[in-house]
Amino acid sequence: MPSLAGLFFWMNKKIKNINKIIVSKPLKLDCGKTITNFPLAYETYGKLNENKNNAILVFHALTGDQFVAEINPVTKRDGWWVTAVGPGKAIDTNKYFVICANVIGGCMGSLGPSDINKETNQPYGLDFPVITIKDIVRAQESLLDHLGVKKLLCATGGSMGGMQLLQFCTTFPDKSFSAIPIACSSSHSAQNIALNELARQAIMADPIWNNGKYFLKNTQPKNGLAVARMVGHISYLSKQGMQEKFGRKLQEKADYEFSFDADFQVESYLRHQGSSFVERFDANSILYITRAMDYFDLSKQFKGGLVEAFKNQSTKFLVISFSSDWLYTTKENKDIVIALNASGADVSYSEIETDKGHDSFLLNETEFLKTLKAFIDSMYDKFKK
Amino acid sequence: MPSLAGLFFWMNKKIKNINKIIVSKPLKLDCGKTITNFPLAYETYGKLNENKNNAILVFHALTGDQFVAEINPVTKRDGWWVTAVGPGKAIDTNKYFVICANVIGGCMGSLGPSDINKETNQPYGLDFPVITIKDIVRAQESLLDHLGVKKLLCATGGSMGGMQLLQFCTTFPDKSFSAIPIACSSSHSAQNIALNELARQAIMADPIWNNGKYFLKNTQPKNGLAVARMVGHISYLSKQGMQEKFGRKLQEKADYEFSFDADFQVESYLRHQGSSFVERFDANSILYITRAMDYFDLSKQFKGGLVEAFKNQSTKFLVISFSSDWLYTTKENKDIVIALNASGADVSYSEIETDKGHDSFLLNETEFLKTLKAFIDSMYDKFKK
Repeated sequence: MPSLAGLFFWMNKKIKNINKIIVSKPLKLDCGKTITNFPLAYETYGKLNENKNNAILVFHALTGDQFVAEINPVTKRDGWWVTAVGPGKAIDTNKYFVICANVIGGCMGSLGPSDINKETNQPYGLDFPVITIKDIVRAQESLLDHLGVKKLLCATGGSMGGMQLLQFCTTFPDKSFSAIPIACSSSHSAQNIALNELARQAIMADPIWNNGKYFLKNTQPKNGLAVARMVGHISYLSKQGMQEKFGRKLQEKADYEFSFDADFQVESYLRHQGSSFVERFDANSILYITRAMDYFDLSKQFKGGLVEAFKNQSTKFLVISFSSDWLYTTKENKDIVIALNASGADVSYSEIETDKGHDSFLLNETEFLKTLKAFIDSMYDKFKK
Repeated sequence: MPSLAGLFFWMNKKIKNINKIIVSKPLKLDCGKTITNFPLAYETYGKLNENKNNAILVFHALTGDQFVAEINPVTKRDGWWVTAVGPGKAIDTNKYFVICANVIGGCMGSLGPSDINKETNQPYGLDFPVITIKDIVRAQESLLDHLGVKKLLCATGGSMGGMQLLQFCTTFPDKSFSAIPIACSSSHSAQNIALNELARQAIMADPIWNNGKYFLKNTQPKNGLAVARMVGHISYLSKQGMQEKFGRKLQEKADYEFSFDADFQVESYLRHQGSSFVERFDANSILYITRAMDYFDLSKQFKGGLVEAFKNQSTKFLVISFSSDWLYTTKENKDIVIALNASGADVSYSEIETDKGHDSFLLNETEFLKTLKAFIDSMYDKFKK
């Protein structure tokens, strides 16, 4: 039998002092099930000002978490968006109050499949309900009340964070003065569903996965999860960026070794990314979160499609894409802009020229960070009035 | 203990009357080991004419085989290139004599890791030597002698077949009057190495793989191999092509089922491709052949690089790429053209506009097939003289 805290006992130990609220209001999920009294973990940076008009909500991506701009207590490495968020940075925490919550379905303190199901006194595993991006976003609403934020200055997020943001703006049209969806899509493409399915199949192919019940042996399907992570890392870089970064460089050897060891640096990189990921992320969480992404199709929620979805938006949008992003292409981001325009919303758009691919939003991309800063600062000037 | 014929006993039974020669001349491989008296399986279509000037050598891709233009005895489906090869087709077998050999390292009759290692009386598994594209091509030389072909009218191949072709033309510069490399590269890119590594890791993550010794239990790592195959199928289609083919269409259901079953058609497609592949292909062969692809870097073989590689070519080249191919891009194919031009070779180039991605060379793409036919027919007119 697993310990009370289940598989992630070791992880929870490491993140003892995690901030969380218990959301008591019942949340009826899209699948029909209801969750209630569930934990929602979050972090904040900076201070909410007296007028409560400097709050920025950040939505994290698939394998991100609430540790945006501080040392991550599990990995002991920098938060995932220190390039953009911090004192004096594009999203300046000397000036703004930044909030980020861990998604439900995740494994960093918010309710997820590694938590204990009170009905069985075991971790949920596949008894966890299948969730959607809308469920994820609705679960976060209470946090704003808890923090005393009536209306956000801005909400932003890249990749799956951008998808949450688009959902947030349509589900709660008056909650944010401005919004910056970055490198995302209003509807998950067939190729992206395929890549997610590949990751899920890699996990489910691992016999340790055991139909999601690996917690019974207090382990996890590391081999399958590592392969799933490699899928991600290939898709986050552009072909050209990968060529420039790795090319055909060999890994600490003078020539081919004619073996199946990691002869090439790119192989070594992928293996490292895979093996380090399994130390920080729950395999079932990958299944649940990728499923939520695949189900995301904003236009499906509204008769009349995407234009209808964005109708009556008072939120001011800046959509940002990266030229070499093949996961969430410029075309997909432009489709959001077109729909926002067609629905009469206030929208501007910026395509950042870079060969760094989808990962660009996490990197020190000067033009991107300048764009981000300029928009947020100008929105603050307007919102204050 | 496995049966004498090892893992692929069942497969070899199915393909009893397979054509093969035994190559008696020792072949020293790039890794330093030597193979000798090894089988090389092949098929031919059409007849060699009296002047022996109508022979066309086709090189197959990663998971292809010698069954180009007839029912494949294992899959019972059409050969992999019936769109291009056959009576009255672009490569007209009423007119030309078409030859295709199974690559060494493969599992369709040529020497591969599922064959019996005479030293151990067990299948080779990982005792099989790591091979290169050059080894693969050199192994095929004897076949032309055996068939009485001194000089080919043309040699062609797509994807890994194109890589073999480029190697063939530089290793045997006088063996073919003309050559048509299709959708390939002179040097495997970092992204393609990464995708191959992903496939290999998926196989090696499967505990059934057992360090290549799955034959001891007369089985194979089906789960891992199926995942590996899914990687391929994602990379063979373009994003747009996949969107048009599958989009977000559901698989025989009216709405999301909120489960991890295949809700989307694209998931069902990938699962089918994965599960059917394991019935016809050996997992260790995938390891060996992908490794050969990754090691392929024609410029590395010649001081002075690619231009030097193509020096003194009398072969007339037509390079063909597909606009939406992201696996072997137009840029990579153009780099071959540029090097051929720089080395003074006779080269023409055609980029076929299509959204069908890398797979285009296997499909009924009218412009592509017309281009192929026109070039081959004109080469025959010149070669006859």
